Amino acid sequence: MYIIIIGAGRTGSKVIELATQDDHEVVVIERDQELAEEVSATYDCMVINADAASKDTLLEAGVREADAVISTTENDSVNLMISMLGKQYGVETLVSSINDPQHMDLFGDLGVNIVESPHELNGQYLYRAVQRPAIQDFMKISGGAEIFELTVDADAPIAGLSLIEADSEGLLPEETVIVAIVRDGELLIPRGESEIRAGDTVTIFAKNGATDRVTREFTGV
Amino acid sequence: MYIIIIGAGRTGSKVIELATQDDHEVVVIERDQELAEEVSATYDCMVINADAASKDTLLEAGVREADAVISTTENDSVNLMISMLGKQYGVETLVSSINDPQHMDLFGDLGVNIVESPHELNGQYLYRAVQRPAIQDFMKISGGAEIFELTVDADAPIAGLSLIEADSEGLLPEETVIVAIVRDGELLIPRGESEIRAGDTVTIFAKNGATDRVTREFTGV
Amino acid sequence: MYIIIIGAGRTGSKVIELATQDDHEVVVIERDQELAEEVSATYDCMVINADAASKDTLLEAGVREADAVISTTENDSVNLMISMLGKQYGVETLVSSINDPQHMDLFGDLGVNIVESPHELNGQYLYRAVQRPAIQDFMKISGGAEIFELTVDADAPIAGLSLIEADSEGLLPEETVIVAIVRDGELLIPRGESEIRAGDTVTIFAKNGATDRVTREFTGV
Amino acid sequence: MYIIIIGAGRTGSKVIELATQDDHEVVVIERDQELAEEVSATYDCMVINADAASKDTLLEAGVREADAVISTTENDSVNLMISMLGKQYGVETLVSSINDPQHMDLFGDLGVNIVESPHELNGQYLYRAVQRPAIQDFMKISGGAEIFELTVDADAPIAGLSLIEADSEGLLPEETVIVAIVRDGELLIPRGESEIRAGDTVTIFAKNGATDRVTREFTGV
Amino acid sequence: MYIIIIGAGRTGSKVIELATQDDHEVVVIERDQELAEEVSATYDCMVINADAASKDTLLEAGVREADAVISTTENDSVNLMISMLGKQYGVETLVSSINDPQHMDLFGDLGVNIVESPHELNGQYLYRAVQRPAIQDFMKISGGAEIFELTVDADAPIAGLSLIEADSEGLLPEETVIVAIVRDGELLIPRGESEIRAGDTVTIFAKNGATDRVTREFTGV
Amino acid sequence: MYIIIIGAGRTGSKVIELATQDDHEVVVIERDQELAEEVSATYDCMVINADAASKDTLLEAGVREADAVISTTENDSVNLMISMLGKQYGVETLVSSINDPQHMDLFGDLGVNIVESPHELNGQYLYRAVQRPAIQDFMKISGGAEIFELTVDADAPIAGLSLIEADSEGLLPEETVIVAIVRDGELLIPRGESEIRAGDTVTIFAKNGATDRVTREFTGV
Amino acid sequence: MYIIIIGAGRTGSKVIELATQDDHEVVVIERDQELAEEVSATYDCMVINADAASKDTLLEAGVREADAVISTTENDSVNLMISMLGKQYGVETLVSSINDPQHMDLFGDLGVNIVESPHELNGQYLYRAVQRPAIQDFMKISGGAEIFELTVDADAPIAGLSLIEADSEGLLPEETVIVAIVRDGELLIPRGESEIRAGDTVTIFAKNGATDRVTREFTGV
Amino acid sequence: MYIIIIGAGRTGSKVIELATQDDHEVVVIERDQELAEEVSATYDCMVINADAASKDTLLEAGVREADAVISTTENDSVNLMISMLGKQYGVETLVSSINDPQHMDLFGDLGVNIVESPHELNGQYLYRAVQRPAIQDFMKISGGAEIFELTVDADAPIAGLSLIEADSEGLLPEETVIVAIVRDGELLIPRGESEIRAGDTVTIFAKNGATDRVTREFTGV
Repeated sequence: MYIIIIGAGRTGSKVIELATQDDHEVVVIERDQELAEEVSATYDCMVINADAASKDTLLEAGVREADAVISTTENDSVNLMISMLGKQYGVETLVSSINDPQHMDLFGDLGVNIVESPHELNGQYLYRAVQRPAIQDFMKISGGAEIFELTVDADAPIAGLSLIEADSEGLLPEETVIVAIVRDGELLIPRGESEIRAGDTVTIFAKNGATDRVTREFTGV
Repeated sequence: MYIIIIGAGRTGSKVIELATQDDHEVVVIERDQELAEEVSATYDCMVINADAASKDTLLEAGVREADAVISTTENDSVNLMISMLGKQYGVETLVSSINDPQHMDLFGDLGVNIVESPHELNGQYLYRAVQRPAIQDFMKISGGAEIFELTVDADAPIAGLSLIEADSEGLLPEETVIVAIVRDGELLIPRGESEIRAGDTVTIFAKNGATDRVTREFTGV
Repeated sequence: MYIIIIGAGRTGSKVIELATQDDHEVVVIERDQELAEEVSATYDCMVINADAASKDTLLEAGVREADAVISTTENDSVNLMISMLGKQYGVETLVSSINDPQHMDLFGDLGVNIVESPHELNGQYLYRAVQRPAIQDFMKISGGAEIFELTVDADAPIAGLSLIEADSEGLLPEETVIVAIVRDGELLIPRGESEIRAGDTVTIFAKNGATDRVTREFTGV
Repeated sequence: MYIIIIGAGRTGSKVIELATQDDHEVVVIERDQELAEEVSATYDCMVINADAASKDTLLEAGVREADAVISTTENDSVNLMISMLGKQYGVETLVSSINDPQHMDLFGDLGVNIVESPHELNGQYLYRAVQRPAIQDFMKISGGAEIFELTVDADAPIAGLSLIEADSEGLLPEETVIVAIVRDGELLIPRGESEIRAGDTVTIFAKNGATDRVTREFTGV
Repeated sequence: MYIIIIGAGRTGSKVIELATQDDHEVVVIERDQELAEEVSATYDCMVINADAASKDTLLEAGVREADAVISTTENDSVNLMISMLGKQYGVETLVSSINDPQHMDLFGDLGVNIVESPHELNGQYLYRAVQRPAIQDFMKISGGAEIFELTVDADAPIAGLSLIEADSEGLLPEETVIVAIVRDGELLIPRGESEIRAGDTVTIFAKNGATDRVTREFTGV
Repeated sequence: MYIIIIGAGRTGSKVIELATQDDHEVVVIERDQELAEEVSATYDCMVINADAASKDTLLEAGVREADAVISTTENDSVNLMISMLGKQYGVETLVSSINDPQHMDLFGDLGVNIVESPHELNGQYLYRAVQRPAIQDFMKISGGAEIFELTVDADAPIAGLSLIEADSEGLLPEETVIVAIVRDGELLIPRGESEIRAGDTVTIFAKNGATDRVTREFTGV
Repeated sequence: MYIIIIGAGRTGSKVIELATQDDHEVVVIERDQELAEEVSATYDCMVINADAASKDTLLEAGVREADAVISTTENDSVNLMISMLGKQYGVETLVSSINDPQHMDLFGDLGVNIVESPHELNGQYLYRAVQRPAIQDFMKISGGAEIFELTVDADAPIAGLSLIEADSEGLLPEETVIVAIVRDGELLIPRGESEIRAGDTVTIFAKNGATDRVTREFTGV
Repeated sequence: MYIIIIGAGRTGSKVIELATQDDHEVVVIERDQELAEEVSATYDCMVINADAASKDTLLEAGVREADAVISTTENDSVNLMISMLGKQYGVETLVSSINDPQHMDLFGDLGVNIVESPHELNGQYLYRAVQRPAIQDFMKISGGAEIFELTVDADAPIAGLSLIEADSEGLLPEETVIVAIVRDGELLIPRGESEIRAGDTVTIFAKNGATDRVTREFTGV
C-alpha cells in the first residue's frame, strides 16, 4: 500500500514504525524540522518537511496515488482539513486521530475512520487498573458487555474446578463465557471439561461487564 | 477509596474525571500552577501544586492513608520514584503510566501495575484502521490470538447464514468463535442456529488473529 | 443581528469595531487572554477567552441563536472547523477569512462566504501603486474588466473637454465608461456634456482594464 | 523598472511575486535571515539580509538607480524613515503600507503613495459579507457612493426585466447605474433593452451606496 | 516648562531625573509596563504606558501644550516619527537621541536638536583614556581644535613656571591658550604672570588639538 | 600599543573601530558568539569568544604583554574584576566604563581610569538641549565653570560688535572669555578687535557657567 | 549577629536556614522576585528584592551595622564586588562562595574568607566514592596528609585486634593515627589496648593519605 | 576502571576531569548537545549525546562491562532510575549525587553510594565561616565530634607552649587531640613536647566539636 502519514510525533512515530516494518510505501509529512530529520534517518520512508494542510504539500506527497492517509496530529482542526483534502483527492482509506470526542461526528460525516484520543484511552486504563486491579486488559462491546482478561488466583472459588463443575456450583454468572485460557504461555480453547487452574490467564466475555461478582469468582478478591 | 493521582495533564485529567465521577476521595498533585488551578476549579478533589517526587508532598497528600497512587506523568523516572515512595509508605495499589516499553521490568519488579504508553497504543490502532479497515476494535491475547469487532457487509459470504450453515460451508475458520452479536443496539449471545445478518456488529475470537481470510468471510473484502 | 466573531487580532478587532458600532449583539471568542481582556475593555460585547474550535465554547457563545459567525483567524484549518461547526448548528450566515487561496473550494463547498487573505490583497495594491501610480483604487470584474479611480492631471489630453468632445477626438477608448466624477468633494453623475477638469477624481469602467492608453488620456503620463 | 521592496513577510512576498513575474529588476531588503533565504531561493531577485532603515543598506540595494521603493513592513516608523531616505535619494515612486490610519498625513506630506492596513480592509470585507451577504465585491467612492457586484436571484423583482422595464416599474432607484453584466463568464455592457436575468452578476453604481432597497431589487432579500 | 519625555530606559531615566529636579511639568511615555511603573513610583511626573509613535498617545500626553518633546529611544525610526508628530503639533523644542550618525540630516532637516549616540561618545572617551591617559575631559571644536583638561605633573617641563616664562622658553605651542586653572578646588582665570604648579588641573585650548607635544609639556610623559 | 578590549557591544565596537584605525595591535574578548564573529569579520583584530573574567582567557589574550585593557561591559562587577586581574598582571593602563556612579571609588582606589556611564552623559546632553537650545556642545570644569559653543543670532545684542565694543557696552559678563570663533568653517583665535558676526560659532568660557544672561547676549533669546 | 546573605539560590537557602535556626538577625538580598518571595514566606528574616552589587541596596540592608556578609552567588564578579563594598563599609566578617578556583587570590588579597565551589567539591566526593568506595568522608590537610572515615570489614586484617597487636603485626602503616572509633553510635577515643571490631567506623589520620595499603588493612579490599 | 559518568554539568565536569586524569576508560552520557560537544573536545573520553535513563543508551555506553556508574544530575528521579538500571546490568560500583536528603533511603536500599547535595554542603561551609571564622576546614564525625583546622594566632593563650605545658595549664579541653601541625608548609606529627607556635595550622579532634572554648585557646578570639 501507498500510505501518507501526517505527523511524526510520538503517536505518528509508532505508526511509521509499523507501516515500514510491513514494507508499505510510506511518505511522512512533518512540520518540525528536527522530527522530520530524525524520522528520515531512522525509517525507510520519504519525509517531507512542510505543513500538511496544503494542497501543494499533499500533491508532492503523491496524494493522488495514495491508498491511505493517516492523520496523527494533536490538533483536530488540522486532522479535519487533511481528511477533507484527502477525500477531495479520492483517497480510499482515511484514518485520523481525534483529540476532543465532541468532534467525532464531524469526522464521521466525512467517512473518516477515527481513533479516539490516546489520553482518553490511557486514562480509562489507568483508572480501571485501580478499580479492578485483577483485570489486565479489556474491550468494551456495544450494549454494556465487556471482554476482559485476568489471572486466576489460588484462593479463587473457581480454581481447580472444570467449567462444568463451576457452572453446577453456580460460580459462573449467567451469560458469562470463558473465551480463552492461557496456561504456561499456551492458548487453550476452553470446553466443558476444561479445568481452570490457579495461574491461568483467562479471557472472559460477560454480558453485564466485569462486575465485582465475576472478578471475585476468579480472583478471590 | 482514597486515591492520589500524580499529574493533571491530558491523561491525568481523564483519570481525575473518572475517579471523581465514582465519588472516590481524590487528591491530585500537579507541578504546573495553571493546570493545578484548572483541575481545582473543575473537579471535586483536593489539589496540591507541588513536585510529587518528594516525601513531604506525598505525606501532605496523605499517602499513609491512600488506597491507591496513580502516576500519569510522561517521565518514567518520575513515575518510578513515585511508585517506590508509594511502596515505602505501604500503598496497596500502585498504578503507573510508562512511556518507554523498555522500562517495564523496573516497574514490574516493584509490583506496580503498569499501563503502556498511550502513544504506542494509539499508533497501533491507527495503523490497524488502515490495514484492516473493517475491524473496529480489537484486543490481543497472549499467544497470538485476537478478539475483534467488525460489521458484517451485505456482500459478505457469511451474511444470511446461521452459524451451523456457515460452519458446514467451511466459512468459519477453525478455532474461530463468534463471541457476541450486536443487532440494532441489542446484544445477542450467539448459538448454533443464530443467523448472521448484514449490518450486525460481531465480536470474534480467532486463535490465529484477524487474518485476511477471517475478515473476508465477514466483510466480503 | 446576533454575531459571533472568532479571533480578536488586528483583522478581528476591526470587525468587532464595525459590528458594535452598528449596535449588533456581538460575542467574541479569543484564545489569547491579553487580547480577550483588551477587547472586553474597549468594545461593548461579550468576550469568551477560550479555544473556539470546540462545541462547548460555541454553545457557550450562543451559536444556536447566532445569525452569523465570522471567523477571522490566520489558520485556515481552524476557520474551516469553525465554519463546519457553525453549519452543523444551523447558523445562517458563515463568513471566513482564508489565508491560502488553494483552500477556497473547501470553504465554498460548505457555502461559506470567504474573504481572501489580507496579505494577498495588500500585496496587489502596493504593486499596483508602483505600476500605475495614477490609479487610486480599483476593483476587478469577471472577464478582465476593471473599474478604477484616478485624478485628472492638468497635462492630460482629456482635461478641459466634455465627454462628447473627448469621444469625438477618440480620447475615450471603446467600451470605456466614465461612471462618476468627484469635484471639490462633490459627486457628479457624468453626462455627455459634462466637462472633465484637471483635479477631478473620475471613476472609470474599462472593459479591457486600466491599460496604459486609458491612464495616459487622463493623467498625461 | 528597478524596484526595491522592503520586507518579505506575507504582504511583501506577494509584492515580490508580482514584481518578479513582470520581469522587473527587483532587490529585496529583509531583516530576518530565514525569510531572506526563503525569498532568495524562491524568486528571481537579489536579497539583502539587513536592516533597511540605514543609508548603507539602501545604497547597497542601489537606491540611487531605483525607480520605486515599496515599503511593506508592519511598523509605520520604519516605513516612514525608509520613505524619507528614498525621497532624499531621489526615488521617483515611493509606496508604503501603513498600519495606523492616523499616520496617513505624515506619509501624504512626503508625497508617498500609501496603501491602507490590510487588517483594516479585511475587517471591512468580512463585516460587509455578513451585513449584505449578496454583495460580492465593492469599492467606495468619495461622497458616499459605492460600486458593487452581486448576483441576481430568481426571486428578485428585477429578474427577467429589461433595464427600461425595470426603470418604468420604479425598480431602479434614482442615480443607480448598471455598469456591467457578466453572464456565463462573458461581460456585457448594458443598454436600455438589455435584460437582467437570474444568475447574472451585475456591477452597480449607486450614489447612495448599497442600500437595502437596491440590494432587495436584485436579490429579493 | 511642559516637557514630554519619550522612553524611560537608562538614558531616559537620567533625563526624567534632571527635568523633575528642576520642577518642570513632566509627562513620560514608555512602552514597557515594568519601566513605566518604576518611573511612576520614583519621580514626580505623569507616566503613560503606551506606544509613543501614535497621535492618540501624544495627544493624551498633552502634546498641544508641550514646550518640548525629548525622544530618547534606541530606535531612530521611532525617534524620527515622534519628532515629525511633535512638529506637526507645533511643539517648539524638539530634541532627539540618534543612534546611527547617518540619520543626522533627516533630523536636521526637521529642525530637531539632536544628541549623538551615547555609545559612539562613550567609545571615544574610553579610547582617548588609553591614548592620552593624562587628558581628563575634552571637547572638539570645528576645524580640528580641541579644548581639554589635564593635571600638571611634577615632572612636567612647565611645572613651576609662569605663563610668560613658559612662553619665553617655547613650552607653549603656538595658538595654545590656557583657559582655566583649578587649584585646590578653586578656579583661577590665568594671566601672564600666573604660575602653573604641579597638581593644577588646567583647561587648554589648542588649535591643532591635544598633540603629543602639548600633553608632554604639561605632564612630562 | 597592545590593547585588549573587553566587550564588543555598541560601545565596545566604537572603541575597536578607533583602536584598529590607529593600527594598534588589538585583541577583543567577547562572550556572545554572534558579536564575536561579526567583529572578527569587520575589523583587523584577534577575537576571543569567551568570558573575560577568567585568568585563562586574559592570558590567552596576552595580558602579560598588554599596554592597556579597556573594559566596556554594562556590568560593573565584571568591569571591576577585569580591572583587578589586569592590575595583577601589571597592565600599565586600565580603562573602564562604569554604569553606576556609586561604584566610582571602587575603581578609583584601584587606579583605573574610568569613563562615566554613556546613559548618564547622554541624558545630560538631551536635557541641556531643551533647557538651553542655543548651546551646541559643552564641557564642565571643576568649580562650576563651563565652556560651551553656540551660534550667534542676527538678533543677538553682540552681533556686529568687536569684542572691545561688546565689553565696553557691558555685553560680556565678567570672567567670560571668548576662546574661539568658527566662521565659514574656519577657526579664528579672537582678539580685542575681532568682530562677532551673526552666524559665527563661538566657544565661550564662563566662570559661572552658561547662564541665561550669557546665552541671551549671543543669541538674543 | 547581624548577617547579610546575598543570594537565595540552593546554596543561599541552606545558609539562610542555618542562620535563622540560630536566631541571628538575617537580611537576605535576592535579585529574582520569585525566590525572594519564597524565602520571605519560609524563613524568619527580612528580604530585599534587588541587585546586591549596589551601595543603595547594601545600605538599605544595613551594611553599616552588619557583623557579616555572606555572598553565595554563582558569579564570582558579583561576589567580589560585594566583598569589596562590604569591606569599604567596615563589615568585620566577609565570606564568599567562589566558583572558579583561579579567582582565589583576588578574594584572599581582600581578606575574604572563601569557600570553594560546591561543584568542585562534589565532583571530588563522587569520584572518591568510586575510587575508594570504603571511604565515607575525608578532609585534606596541607602537605598531602588526609583524615578519612571508613567502616571496618569482617574480612579486614585488623578486625578483632587491639591497636597494640595491630601495630606489632605491622598492620598500621607508619605515621598513621586512629583518631576516633564510633561503635554502635557511640564515640570512643582509642587507646593502645582498644580493639578494632568489624562494623566500627574509624577515623584515621594518614600522613601519606588514604593509600591502597591503609584502606586494605581496614576493609580487606 | 571502566567508568560511565552521567551528566556533564559543573559537578559532572569535575568528575570527568578527575577520572580522565587517572587514565580510566571513561564514557560520558549528556543530554544537552552543547555540553556534550564541549566535553568531547576537552577530555579524553567517549561522549554519548542522549538521555541516560534508557536501556539503549546505557547499553551503547557499555554498561555490561562498566566497573562503575556515577550519576551526577540535579534530578533525583533520573539518578534513581539510572542506579536501578545500573544494578540490573550488574555494575559493581554505583555512585550518585542526591539533591533532596529525604531520598537518601531510596538510594541506600539499592546499595548505591550517595553523595549529599553540593548546595547543602556548601551552605554549611559558608555559615561555619561566619560562625567560627578561625576554622578553615572541618569534618563531622558521628556522635557530635568534629575534626577541624585553624591557624594559631599570636594572641592565643596556647601560642608558644608545648602540648605538655598547655595541658598542665588546663588550656587543652578534655578529649581534645592535636592530630597534626603544619608549619611553613611542613607536616609535623605532634608529641607531648611539641611546641605550638603562632602561625601554625593545627588539625584538632574535639569530642564535643569546635566549641567557643577550644577555638579561643588557639586563636585568642
